[in-house]
Amino acid sequence: MKEEKKLVRVMGGESVSPPPIWLMRQAGRYLPEYRALRAKAGSFWTMCMNPEMACEITLQPIRRFGFDAAIIFSDILVVPAALGVKVEFEENIGPVLEPVSDIAGLETDRSKWGSTLAPVYEALRLTRAKLDSSTALIGFAGAPWTLATYMAEGRGSSDQRAAKLWFYRDPTSFAQLLDVLGDCVAQHLARQIEAGADVVQIFDSWASGLPASAFEACVIAPTKRVVQKLRAIHSHAKIIGFPRATTLAGYERYARETGVDAISLDTSVPMAWAAKNLNIPVQGNLDPIALLAGGDALARATDEILEAMCGKPFIFNLGHGVLQETPPEHVAELVARVRAS
Amino acid sequence: MKEEKKLVRVMGGESVSPPPIWLMRQAGRYLPEYRALRAKAGSFWTMCMNPEMACEITLQPIRRFGFDAAIIFSDILVVPAALGVKVEFEENIGPVLEPVSDIAGLETDRSKWGSTLAPVYEALRLTRAKLDSSTALIGFAGAPWTLATYMAEGRGSSDQRAAKLWFYRDPTSFAQLLDVLGDCVAQHLARQIEAGADVVQIFDSWASGLPASAFEACVIAPTKRVVQKLRAIHSHAKIIGFPRATTLAGYERYARETGVDAISLDTSVPMAWAAKNLNIPVQGNLDPIALLAGGDALARATDEILEAMCGKPFIFNLGHGVLQETPPEHVAELVARVRAS
Repeated sequence: MKEEKKLVRVMGGESVSPPPIWLMRQAGRYLPEYRALRAKAGSFWTMCMNPEMACEITLQPIRRFGFDAAIIFSDILVVPAALGVKVEFEENIGPVLEPVSDIAGLETDRSKWGSTLAPVYEALRLTRAKLDSSTALIGFAGAPWTLATYMAEGRGSSDQRAAKLWFYRDPTSFAQLLDVLGDCVAQHLARQIEAGADVVQIFDSWASGLPASAFEACVIAPTKRVVQKLRAIHSHAKIIGFPRATTLAGYERYARETGVDAISLDTSVPMAWAAKNLNIPVQGNLDPIALLAGGDALARATDEILEAMCGKPFIFNLGHGVLQETPPEHVAELVARVRAS
Repeated sequence: MKEEKKLVRVMGGESVSPPPIWLMRQAGRYLPEYRALRAKAGSFWTMCMNPEMACEITLQPIRRFGFDAAIIFSDILVVPAALGVKVEFEENIGPVLEPVSDIAGLETDRSKWGSTLAPVYEALRLTRAKLDSSTALIGFAGAPWTLATYMAEGRGSSDQRAAKLWFYRDPTSFAQLLDVLGDCVAQHLARQIEAGADVVQIFDSWASGLPASAFEACVIAPTKRVVQKLRAIHSHAKIIGFPRATTLAGYERYARETGVDAISLDTSVPMAWAAKNLNIPVQGNLDPIALLAGGDALARATDEILEAMCGKPFIFNLGHGVLQETPPEHVAELVARVRAS
């Protein structure tokens, strides 16, 4: 299909030159137009749950930079919220959740999830209607493991301690938690596709630091189940997986076993290694701090990635989200450089 | 040499069964006897800089658990302090340093470094005199990159932003900073060996998240220089390197190129991979959270590591430091299990 969006073509295995580009957290606080809207809205969660606002924020970076994909403005914690967990966003602290230590209190009736999640689908529909037909729309969800780390700890946790303790001490009930999460994640991704998402991304932001057997039980197996459940509903769903900062062996295994169509890599992965060892399309992996630095360092880092992935099915992105201190001009320079490659 | 300490034998390439065991941060707040001393001393830094106290704290876990090695109680930030950087430890925040943005103000006259570092050497002498001859004594230092991350940021930084920005924007002056640090680190390790350390460990705690070219410039090359400088003084220095949470390719390269005798691995590295791919003795890599969990999970995780490393030159350790909430009984169980293997 000649008219297919670039991002979707790459996910089908095609090498496109120049490669499509979008950035994780491309909508956000580094943009003055976002900060202006945020000042009016009051809170991050209000913006996520207001379809018009979420649509507007999703479109802001597309207007400015003409990225090849728009990612819906939302948050991974909408899934715990749909399961009945109280989620609040505290200024300068981040998300605070009512900690969960067993699955008994979770809302497992999927017909109830929509009351929380419906605004995300409405935002996708509004955005799809306003987007150029050449721009892909991306929906997303957190992976079960990463969501479990927030739910067990009650907040973000750099060592994922509460979730790991739960897994070590009671692997059976922790597996049940991952299953409930996987059901809701698969359902949420399916509804996003129905609302207009061309592609969905699964963020496993806390996949690092897991011993090999825990990585299998907490990342590989639950992701595989999400992919299977989603494909049972939409057999052609296009899925990007991002097991952030796992080992190279972890990325390799994830690419081979989970069934995702493409894999997103963090900044430490040598792209020459990826080009040689990963058997699916790759996304990544510019250092967000190189984007913040700008200048020669940004140009060099960009070129290194483009050279390593030349001739491969590749999506240009960062290795992590845009930092809020990033000058928007650096983003414009990056897009221009990738487009000129 | 039949009488050689187990740790030293392993570092010479010998497989010892059961393997020697010690734990990173084995002296510390999880031990009531440490907390009692801390309550009297008032501050962490006071204890580091008081040779009698540092000696006593170093010996506490040896008395309790009979580890095969004692690591001197000190801190990696003694090196920036020796270079004239003001370092303070704030309760519940951690170290706070006067941020450094150029090397002009640093004390590069090595004859001046001793006034700050002498208490560390005295602590080593006192400890060596009290240690059983079969117990190895370990000295240590932070690697240049990790020290630079603290100095540039003025504190610990999970994304190493200030150091990366300096490196990206002015690689020449950043390389000079790494050189000054490397001089002081090599000197500090040499003096520790003279004071009785059998082995030294270089901690590169913030080696994760570096793109491949930055890893080469900031971790591999400076570590290689430290090793060369140290070996120019003590040709038989026994060195363990710990480029924490780098990629598998990073560990492989570090083991092959820096010249260290042994490599310490974080918890995410599959030990079966290490046994197959690393050409030097290996240390690691039990999850500190498995140690905190205890019970079956601890036993299983311990056995997995022991099995993977069976017949290899191997030092049992954690993948990161002991957590302060760890019950000392779990540590005793771990030591017993390793010794019974």
